[in-house]
Amino acid sequence: MASAAAASERSRVRRAPARADYERDTIDAILDEALVAHLGFTVDRQPYVIPTLHARVGDQVYVHGASSSRMVTMLGAGIAACLTVTLVDGLVLARSAFHHSMNYRSVVVLGHARYVEGPEEREVALEAFTERLIPGRWAEVRPPRRQELKGTRVLALSLTEASAKVRTGDPVDDEEDHALDVWAGVLPLTVVPGAPIPDARLRDGLEPSATVTGWTVERGRRRRAPGLP
Amino acid sequence: MASAAAASERSRVRRAPARADYERDTIDAILDEALVAHLGFTVDRQPYVIPTLHARVGDQVYVHGASSSRMVTMLGAGIAACLTVTLVDGLVLARSAFHHSMNYRSVVVLGHARYVEGPEEREVALEAFTERLIPGRWAEVRPPRRQELKGTRVLALSLTEASAKVRTGDPVDDEEDHALDVWAGVLPLTVVPGAPIPDARLRDGLEPSATVTGWTVERGRRRRAPGLP
Repeated sequence: MASAAAASERSRVRRAPARADYERDTIDAILDEALVAHLGFTVDRQPYVIPTLHARVGDQVYVHGASSSRMVTMLGAGIAACLTVTLVDGLVLARSAFHHSMNYRSVVVLGHARYVEGPEEREVALEAFTERLIPGRWAEVRPPRRQELKGTRVLALSLTEASAKVRTGDPVDDEEDHALDVWAGVLPLTVVPGAPIPDARLRDGLEPSATVTGWTVERGRRRRAPGLP
Repeated sequence: MASAAAASERSRVRRAPARADYERDTIDAILDEALVAHLGFTVDRQPYVIPTLHARVGDQVYVHGASSSRMVTMLGAGIAACLTVTLVDGLVLARSAFHHSMNYRSVVVLGHARYVEGPEEREVALEAFTERLIPGRWAEVRPPRRQELKGTRVLALSLTEASAKVRTGDPVDDEEDHALDVWAGVLPLTVVPGAPIPDARLRDGLEPSATVTGWTVERGRRRRAPGLP
């Protein structure tokens, strides 16, 4: 867990390298908290960036999709991929327009995806897709049927080439701007759940479990579902 | 504003085409609400997906960066780009693991970026970067100096090839699963601001303006700053 991912020449953070972090603990926590990943791949020289659900288990990040999807078939054929997640933590409000920024945590993973073929690893990945959205849910719902699994392909990307980038704290203003009559600081942002909205066809008498009502965005970061490292 | 972006073969939504939307009003609203974009470009066959601040003005999406950054120099040299934004609106909690999903709104823009060279368009873009983060802030802070502008390149991507994809509403469960004793529905998610955190060097007596204390994530969607279409 604490081992650093290799900072290859390709995965080295180029802009603002002081914000770079190659520690696996940092990388894992960001991947686990992010609800959506942006997956990049190139077809006929045109890059595509597609939002997708991801789930990290140990040293692997899993994504999935219909067997017939272009993203799945292209990545399964071995073309290079880039998976990026970004958490926006706050607006950084400086005294000058130029120094406005955001506090964020992001991870970039480079590599080649592989199809997950073994039934055991597939099962672990599929559980992780549900558990990373809402920890505890897997045990409460109907597990996948064989024909459901058949139509879905799972792809794995290794965390071998991964880097994190993190900005925290106050704005960095020019020295002379501190004299200006402008409030400066950070407006923190959080993802917050509203009241659960029951399905239109929900049976009478069913209430959302603590798994649903206790959901917070931070839970994913600390999630350690049974069987997951 | 209401004109549809062309659904080119490349920008046509392939997965779940019923969720596709090529209306500019939909595309604009999603781009304007998203705080961060994921920008894809390819170098030596390796795609890179980099989180970046974006701002839409009319038919253009602007991004910016240091003149020396690889993203900026590669995109400025005319390679193909893909800019994607995604808003997560809720967790879709089905009665089966397989039908779990997310409610989201996303936009994918394909094209080739161009450097913004004209001082007038540059000024409009730079104002938009501040205003799209926090509407009203531009008028409250020190405007950019000439040397600040010199070190920053602005790139524009046209909305000619753009598509939106939107999922809303209830889970879609298998018919027989409605009989299960499982709560199903949607857990809505929103980005919410916390209390503003003053800069460590803030001068005594300065309070955050209504621009800061009144910030909501939806404001960007309806934002029409002076001079912006």
